[in-house]
Amino acid sequence: MSLLTVGSIAFDRIETPFGKTEKIVGGAGTYIALAASLYNNNQTVISIVGEDFPEKMLNEFRNRKINLDGLQIIKGEKTFFWSGKYSKDMNSRQTLVTELNVLEHFNPIVPENYQGIDYLMLGNLSPEVQFKVIEQLKIRPKLIAMDTMNFWMDVSLDQLKKTISMVDLIIINDEEARQLSNEYSLISAAKTIRKMGPKFVIIKKGEHGALLFYEENIFHAPALPLEQVFDPTGAGDTFAGGFMGYISSTDNISFENMKSAIIHGSALASYCVEDFGIKRLQKITKKDLENRICQFVELTKFNVIDSVK
Amino acid sequence: MSLLTVGSIAFDRIETPFGKTEKIVGGAGTYIALAASLYNNNQTVISIVGEDFPEKMLNEFRNRKINLDGLQIIKGEKTFFWSGKYSKDMNSRQTLVTELNVLEHFNPIVPENYQGIDYLMLGNLSPEVQFKVIEQLKIRPKLIAMDTMNFWMDVSLDQLKKTISMVDLIIINDEEARQLSNEYSLISAAKTIRKMGPKFVIIKKGEHGALLFYEENIFHAPALPLEQVFDPTGAGDTFAGGFMGYISSTDNISFENMKSAIIHGSALASYCVEDFGIKRLQKITKKDLENRICQFVELTKFNVIDSVK
Repeated sequence: MSLLTVGSIAFDRIETPFGKTEKIVGGAGTYIALAASLYNNNQTVISIVGEDFPEKMLNEFRNRKINLDGLQIIKGEKTFFWSGKYSKDMNSRQTLVTELNVLEHFNPIVPENYQGIDYLMLGNLSPEVQFKVIEQLKIRPKLIAMDTMNFWMDVSLDQLKKTISMVDLIIINDEEARQLSNEYSLISAAKTIRKMGPKFVIIKKGEHGALLFYEENIFHAPALPLEQVFDPTGAGDTFAGGFMGYISSTDNISFENMKSAIIHGSALASYCVEDFGIKRLQKITKKDLENRICQFVELTKFNVIDSVK
Repeated sequence: MSLLTVGSIAFDRIETPFGKTEKIVGGAGTYIALAASLYNNNQTVISIVGEDFPEKMLNEFRNRKINLDGLQIIKGEKTFFWSGKYSKDMNSRQTLVTELNVLEHFNPIVPENYQGIDYLMLGNLSPEVQFKVIEQLKIRPKLIAMDTMNFWMDVSLDQLKKTISMVDLIIINDEEARQLSNEYSLISAAKTIRKMGPKFVIIKKGEHGALLFYEENIFHAPALPLEQVFDPTGAGDTFAGGFMGYISSTDNISFENMKSAIIHGSALASYCVEDFGIKRLQKITKKDLENRICQFVELTKFNVIDSVK
């Protein structure tokens, strides 16, 4: 089934305790689409870049069967640029530079041939842009998922709540869930957020895994314990991309299937952090994925059936 | 199989955002023995209390088939007392009062009828006291497990390392594991700690669950997501008690059985935090335990067998 991703395509410059990069390709849309391409070869993207964006990367998207009709390439302008530096323990990061460039006036346009898409993933962008995309869809997708961040809660809460009320699934981290809900307990936070609209809530807890909430059900997925995180950039987007790639390719939005999708998203995210930017993600094979899924099974399986009399 | 617990039996006064208690019975040894008594009716305890310790509580231990021959009751002296106050989000606590009392000169003596015990759990106490107990055992137990805390790393690191080198399993939290190993990554921390002696390392991550390390294997157990933690006091000791109660009653120290033991320990700990001190722990029934184990199964089970081609 078709998957439409809306998200930034950008340049990043990243500094971690292990080194720093030149300007490299990044952006939520990039990570989501690359991760989803491991499952789905019927993808479309809506985004915006400047004239400076490398044709080579666009070709990589095309080779992965990602339709770029909805990508605006603005002549004479520059691609969104972000630069950041991670703390020694990788648990916090400092933004060094943000140049919005083309993103500042981004007005997403859904091409006619994108109408009727089955699944929609709204990467972290202004809630207004996210809303405008939903508005233009003549047929409601089977599942609309969105990401967001604290920044939009600070500067654009009303619009954000309006957008949230339109989606089926929200994927955010624990800190964001707490801010959005004003609740410390993640169970209470998920309850409050579900009342805002989404039937499904996924709360990402970084190295501690992720929680999926649906009605009275909770699923806990661990993160793979890693000896070394080389660069956390894009791990959350990779998770979302793997999740939506899996869901859209299996065309099944049951709670059970979402659990599997979370494990797949977590597996891809655990690869993503092994190298700078999208470098590792670009090289993941089906065999890699299979190996890591097996590690997740090993990590979590236990048998208590015999132990409860 | 028999289980010997060495740990403090104490009075606590606890303050949480939900209220405060009078002097109530607490102490690592108390929580461990109560939790283990849900599995094992062949327990012995080594500890020390003052004349002020209530006979009623000693009778509760006896009713739970806990042999108290190794409990020193010191005439004219007072029981160890600790008072603490939890922060609003329960993530940190401040010690208000510590009165060591009888614990100050505690010299543990292993009674003759305790020789030959099968399993030993050393609750958090000075590493010297823990060492003295191991030294007195003429036959090595099948499994020696220990807990400890940052305080002993600060004031008594050499003795602590000597004690750690004697045990098979260490159960500590993430912060303690990092301090002890000088490693941030918990995988690296566990590796370093295993080199100090213990074949098995359990790292508790509070609301994020626990990790068990053995050779190249890792098991991740979630904590049950809770809407409200009423009082976290003793949750870690309850976990250890449930774990060792389960291990000793099943008499199986395989990695697989330890996984089940961790789920049982986690289930008991999730009850412990529902009320002040040992209150909820005293009332847990087999049925309660069964229900919560089922919740852990629901929380973690997923099926990816079909999803990997």
